[in-house]
Amino acid sequence: MSGDVQKLNANNCGFYVGLIHYPVVNRRAELVTSSVTNLDIHDIARASRTFGVKGYFIVHPSEDQQALNRRIIKHWGGDFAMRANPTRKDALNLVQLVYSIEEALSVIESQEAKPFIIGTSAKPSDKTPEIEIPALKAKLKERPVVLLFGTAYGLAPEWTDRLDAFLPPIHGPTDFNHLSVRSAATIYLDRIFGR
Amino acid sequence: MSGDVQKLNANNCGFYVGLIHYPVVNRRAELVTSSVTNLDIHDIARASRTFGVKGYFIVHPSEDQQALNRRIIKHWGGDFAMRANPTRKDALNLVQLVYSIEEALSVIESQEAKPFIIGTSAKPSDKTPEIEIPALKAKLKERPVVLLFGTAYGLAPEWTDRLDAFLPPIHGPTDFNHLSVRSAATIYLDRIFGR
Repeated sequence: MSGDVQKLNANNCGFYVGLIHYPVVNRRAELVTSSVTNLDIHDIARASRTFGVKGYFIVHPSEDQQALNRRIIKHWGGDFAMRANPTRKDALNLVQLVYSIEEALSVIESQEAKPFIIGTSAKPSDKTPEIEIPALKAKLKERPVVLLFGTAYGLAPEWTDRLDAFLPPIHGPTDFNHLSVRSAATIYLDRIFGR
Repeated sequence: MSGDVQKLNANNCGFYVGLIHYPVVNRRAELVTSSVTNLDIHDIARASRTFGVKGYFIVHPSEDQQALNRRIIKHWGGDFAMRANPTRKDALNLVQLVYSIEEALSVIESQEAKPFIIGTSAKPSDKTPEIEIPALKAKLKERPVVLLFGTAYGLAPEWTDRLDAFLPPIHGPTDFNHLSVRSAATIYLDRIFGR
């Protein structure tokens, strides 16, 4: 971990991001496993590195899909890629490949403490309380925080009901709220940690 | 254009985005033409639609690359895609394919007036004044504004010297500033128009 992130974290517990491919729902609200998207790896790793995230978990239950993730990440640490793009490895070093949300949580717990678990959703949830960004930052003084992003049409209900809190959805001045998960993750990180 | 964007623009001139594939520079500061990236089309169109952008210009001088853009955009307006993802066409309707920055500017001028031209850069420019977001929003009361994003390693000097202003670079709490152009565009739109 580079010096600036260490300094950033000196007075705070770690902030983590998780990109969830299972359990998520499709547009008919059916439980599905989504496929890995190459640019989700890159864009969220680069934003995570920019905004001081301590770890970026890619959650996928399939060994085939995780092998693809490993191959992509390994490519950007190779000689050719390091000459062409020396900063990418630095961002991708944040990625941790895990097979379930539970595994991501236990990695954080083993490194620091049991994390406070936050979700995001284009549609607000009834069951889970909303948390505003100042309260989220205060929480980081006490314990690690992990922010989960569901791919496809979002986290499945079995998990939205287990979250500690939701961040409010992102709105612009229009009624359209169909950002990519890459865009949404980037905006949340900027809103929390951007200068 | 949908009703909410019309209402938004009632008291303002239009805000436009341009994604520039030429003239841009590579990491050795050489003049190059970059290739089209599929998810640049989608992610910036979706963010543009979310944040009330009036038009998203994809600037590329090659007819082959523009044919690829047209094919991708046409796909998402087809029967199958409209059943699978009915909102995507709404976002992609904002895209205008043009062959040069000059063509984008003259389209805006023919629809409204000569636009105020803003660039972005991970490294601040010496020659061009910086503009803060409140000043940018004030400018929209007077004339249209276009925000240009250079792909690859950014807009070539021939154009950075012709801009009316630069938006300050995006920083988090670290020294890493290598966001994707998709992420940078999305953050700027949220900072300007997000609620």
